[in-house]
Amino acid sequence: MTTYTDAELHDLAQQLRVDAVRAADAAGSGHPTSSMSAADLMAVLLARHFRYDFERPAHPANDRFILSKGHASPLLYAAYKAAGALDDTELLTFRKLGSRLEGHPTPQRLPWVETATGSLGQGLPVGVGIALAGKRLDRVGYRVYVLCGDSELAEGSVWEAAEHAGHEHLDNLTVIVDVNRLGQRGPTRHGHDLDAYARRFQAFGWHTVETDGHDVAAVDRAYAEARSTSGQPTVILARTLKGKGVAAVEDREGLHGKPLPEAAEAVEELGGDRGARVDVQAPPAARILHAVRSGHLDLPRYEVGDEAATRDAFGQALTALGTARGDVVALDGEVGDSTRAELFAKEHPERYFECYIAEQQLVAASVGMAVRGWLPYASTFAAFLTRAHDFVRMAAISGAGINLVGSHAGVAIGEDGPSQMGLEDLAMFRAVHGSTVLYPCDANQTARLVGSMAELSGIRYLRTSRGTSPVIYPPHEEFPVGGSKVLRSSGEDRLTLVAAGATVHEALVAADELGAAGIPVRVIDLYSVKPVDRGTLREAARATGCLVTVEDHRPEGGIGDAVAEVFDDGEPGPRLVRLAVRTMPGSATPEEQLRAAGIDAASIVAGVSLLVEHAVTP
Amino acid sequence: MTTYTDAELHDLAQQLRVDAVRAADAAGSGHPTSSMSAADLMAVLLARHFRYDFERPAHPANDRFILSKGHASPLLYAAYKAAGALDDTELLTFRKLGSRLEGHPTPQRLPWVETATGSLGQGLPVGVGIALAGKRLDRVGYRVYVLCGDSELAEGSVWEAAEHAGHEHLDNLTVIVDVNRLGQRGPTRHGHDLDAYARRFQAFGWHTVETDGHDVAAVDRAYAEARSTSGQPTVILARTLKGKGVAAVEDREGLHGKPLPEAAEAVEELGGDRGARVDVQAPPAARILHAVRSGHLDLPRYEVGDEAATRDAFGQALTALGTARGDVVALDGEVGDSTRAELFAKEHPERYFECYIAEQQLVAASVGMAVRGWLPYASTFAAFLTRAHDFVRMAAISGAGINLVGSHAGVAIGEDGPSQMGLEDLAMFRAVHGSTVLYPCDANQTARLVGSMAELSGIRYLRTSRGTSPVIYPPHEEFPVGGSKVLRSSGEDRLTLVAAGATVHEALVAADELGAAGIPVRVIDLYSVKPVDRGTLREAARATGCLVTVEDHRPEGGIGDAVAEVFDDGEPGPRLVRLAVRTMPGSATPEEQLRAAGIDAASIVAGVSLLVEHAVTP
Repeated sequence: MTTYTDAELHDLAQQLRVDAVRAADAAGSGHPTSSMSAADLMAVLLARHFRYDFERPAHPANDRFILSKGHASPLLYAAYKAAGALDDTELLTFRKLGSRLEGHPTPQRLPWVETATGSLGQGLPVGVGIALAGKRLDRVGYRVYVLCGDSELAEGSVWEAAEHAGHEHLDNLTVIVDVNRLGQRGPTRHGHDLDAYARRFQAFGWHTVETDGHDVAAVDRAYAEARSTSGQPTVILARTLKGKGVAAVEDREGLHGKPLPEAAEAVEELGGDRGARVDVQAPPAARILHAVRSGHLDLPRYEVGDEAATRDAFGQALTALGTARGDVVALDGEVGDSTRAELFAKEHPERYFECYIAEQQLVAASVGMAVRGWLPYASTFAAFLTRAHDFVRMAAISGAGINLVGSHAGVAIGEDGPSQMGLEDLAMFRAVHGSTVLYPCDANQTARLVGSMAELSGIRYLRTSRGTSPVIYPPHEEFPVGGSKVLRSSGEDRLTLVAAGATVHEALVAADELGAAGIPVRVIDLYSVKPVDRGTLREAARATGCLVTVEDHRPEGGIGDAVAEVFDDGEPGPRLVRLAVRTMPGSATPEEQLRAAGIDAASIVAGVSLLVEHAVTP
Repeated sequence: MTTYTDAELHDLAQQLRVDAVRAADAAGSGHPTSSMSAADLMAVLLARHFRYDFERPAHPANDRFILSKGHASPLLYAAYKAAGALDDTELLTFRKLGSRLEGHPTPQRLPWVETATGSLGQGLPVGVGIALAGKRLDRVGYRVYVLCGDSELAEGSVWEAAEHAGHEHLDNLTVIVDVNRLGQRGPTRHGHDLDAYARRFQAFGWHTVETDGHDVAAVDRAYAEARSTSGQPTVILARTLKGKGVAAVEDREGLHGKPLPEAAEAVEELGGDRGARVDVQAPPAARILHAVRSGHLDLPRYEVGDEAATRDAFGQALTALGTARGDVVALDGEVGDSTRAELFAKEHPERYFECYIAEQQLVAASVGMAVRGWLPYASTFAAFLTRAHDFVRMAAISGAGINLVGSHAGVAIGEDGPSQMGLEDLAMFRAVHGSTVLYPCDANQTARLVGSMAELSGIRYLRTSRGTSPVIYPPHEEFPVGGSKVLRSSGEDRLTLVAAGATVHEALVAADELGAAGIPVRVIDLYSVKPVDRGTLREAARATGCLVTVEDHRPEGGIGDAVAEVFDDGEPGPRLVRLAVRTMPGSATPEEQLRAAGIDAASIVAGVSLLVEHAVTP
């Protein structure tokens, strides 16, 4: 282990500034001034405290670093260069097409990045998830460091995370706040008032250290104090200057996100390119102490004809999955009795994480656990997952593999009214890059899909229902992701009803009634909303000429759009009709709600009768 | 003004409990225990502090009350009954089809409700918006009271709001926290530790009062202290018991959201239905002191052929609108230099509200101002509006009229990479009930649409672009909402390109190139994504047989889906093809990004050539 003098630390920090300036200059864009304020903080961390093997980013004992202020990526890349992880040629590809060095760092391209940042206020929440995994699951002594900007402390998600970390006594977590007093468009609320931030963190149960962020000896002491603090997470509040080290830009407004006007002069003012490097300490030898059990998956089984809620089946299946696989963890937003995640909690309390009513933190903690190789299932009401939309978006950019489960789908919940109804969730999750969207209609199907989700990559969403519905599939039926089930079919079908979840049962009743009236119709259970079963839908379109989608969701972005998207290949499209929730619901019973929205069996029968009357047969 | 003894206050509180129990019992669902904990808090507020004319909910001097814990609606409706605003017959319609008394209160049905609640952690953020309007805009001495639950304090949005209120010194705002220690599924993080909450609020600059929430005299003193506190908002932290007053349910777990098992006995235990009423103090006479100027709207004009960014046009048009209309206010999430809201800030600083990096609070404050009759335009990056998705959802349930503006749409932003790109925003906003979604491609169009938005109801979304583009429309061109523009058209068009925003310009280049190669194509500028111009699209489908959508957005939920939705009437559909962003972008120049996503002119030309080669002519 190399020992660095304070003078050498200063040199290293200046080198980081020089490389940040050079990278942004080469790119013609980027955030050098936001990098320069934090250079000393980064230099001291790398040289004296961080333990990391850049050749083995998966080393279980590696400390973890998250650059929450992701726009300061030039600093991060300069640090990687100083640590020997990348060379100067690559540094200067910053922000160019094909470069690994994006404007904001992503783990999809760089193995040392834990999570994608760039949407402020997300690094700490994810860091809390990693630290929680470190404490309660991995039980390896790694530390988690998160470097935040000061302006991002205005994000509520930071305080959800602070509360979570304080409550869980995450003393393996250190947050460094680069208090450079200037946000993007001007001064922050609190400027250089470190005490203002300290009071807030202290109130949330944190240990706080205030320091001059450009005094390397003081910064070193702050890190040492953080490492020696037990029972509490620590925040280091560092007073810094944006653009530190170059008089033309130091502490000045209006220079956010801009390369330095005179890069060569700036480099000179910073002492020139001295090629300083840093030997980062290796992590100690470690092995994962917990055994990831992997046994037979004994999913719950339900008798055809029985009544069961898909949310119950979710809870039971997740519990079984947790028994079969030791890497499954469950998180919930203080509604585990409603989502039924509480069943998992009772059986596997050591792998259950109560996140209270903080959906952003719920999703972020899941991302953090996925980063550490765990398989999270996070649940709350479907409606409230909209609270975490930006976190889901960023998780997709990270390529994080997480399972999200939204209960209480649609108007079918009944009396609670629109605030509790998931009516936009399919639209939200379908638009997420690389996502999977599943919406089961019976208990056996739900159980199977809960198991299948474990094998997928990216964001996987499962939509469950509050009320019970008849079990229509036998326990051993298979439900491939990307598939569908044809539940009614004949050679004379006049059209096809495409439904999922609650509306499948309405469609079946309608089909039987229509069939009895001499109007045979096909029924497809589109349990896999994304990816969608193009083959079956196209065949149904060919055979019946008309597809009628019926969904307990807004008309935009859900099943209607998913079906329409199948016919995007430039061939003439089939006749399409969509039944969906077009009104603002109030309180009413589930049956009244479905009727009012025009998606119950009677509405389907009425709509189809009208269609068939007027239709030219295919 | 009636004076109430403490004994009478206790009687009133018991009456509220009785009516809450009765309402939930009649409904067979609802949250009586969550109502009972806060009954004394409500009784004292109504009888001794609140000033409100129930016959004139629009009275400018009325105090404002928000039930942030919206599930305690039985308490709210019991209070309305006690105040004479509704009768017992209506009370017992609670949660029934057609009743105004929904499971969670909404202003769409009840004139005394300021904002829809039921998604926790939203009442305070909206209340801050109203209090801010009271202080800085209305300048009438009304007070804003927000009744929160304790479990919702885990929501980050509460701390965004606390920061905002503290920073703005909103001493006209009083928050009452009903600390009943039990959340939905069990104890909260802090139980009855009032000090824990006090430390947090104090750190954010609030005055705090801790009290026994069932001691009416103490509660009265707390309200008096709040009213006499200046320079700071006050939070009253009230220790209460869930289900207070009925031994069978008092302070017990597992009873959240359930009617009392023995309602008649409970009513008896509460002292029976004594028919207690309350005379709420009338507000003082008041007039709105500010004059809402309403003058000629002198929108900026741009020369055809010049280059301009739509975000610049937004900022300039909003500034002009603010000059013409005194009711226009602007809010921004600390990126006003990017969204160009800063232009408004310079011209109309008294009506500009810096919300810092707190998008939930940005939207909530807008809702609060709209509640008070102001016309808010709130802006940030389109990508970051996803942070406020649940607030937008609830604003739609409220029927709030707000304008949201998302800049930096799509991959066209260039080097900053995916974290900063709005690629899911159209999907999010299209699925919002009653929303309007606008996406202009040039500066004059933007300016016109900024003006048109002011006249609409519900959630209106404007998507703007970072880079410049050629001005293609003259200054006086009209752009009706729900319309579109046919930019290229001939009798021989082989297909139609449907584009909006950045891709309009790509489509035009492609069309010219294709035309020169003997493949005439129609081009439609679909600036109104919702509502969509069904007539023009159907005519294009009829005439050209094939619609190719080109959008700088994910393939799901955006322009492709909006166009597909037009053909949902059961008639055979046209040929549809969609070009959209199907990959995960990295950093690159705007041009490289459009190319990589396959939505630039060259990609369109290539795609169309292929289509036309293989196509059967219509």
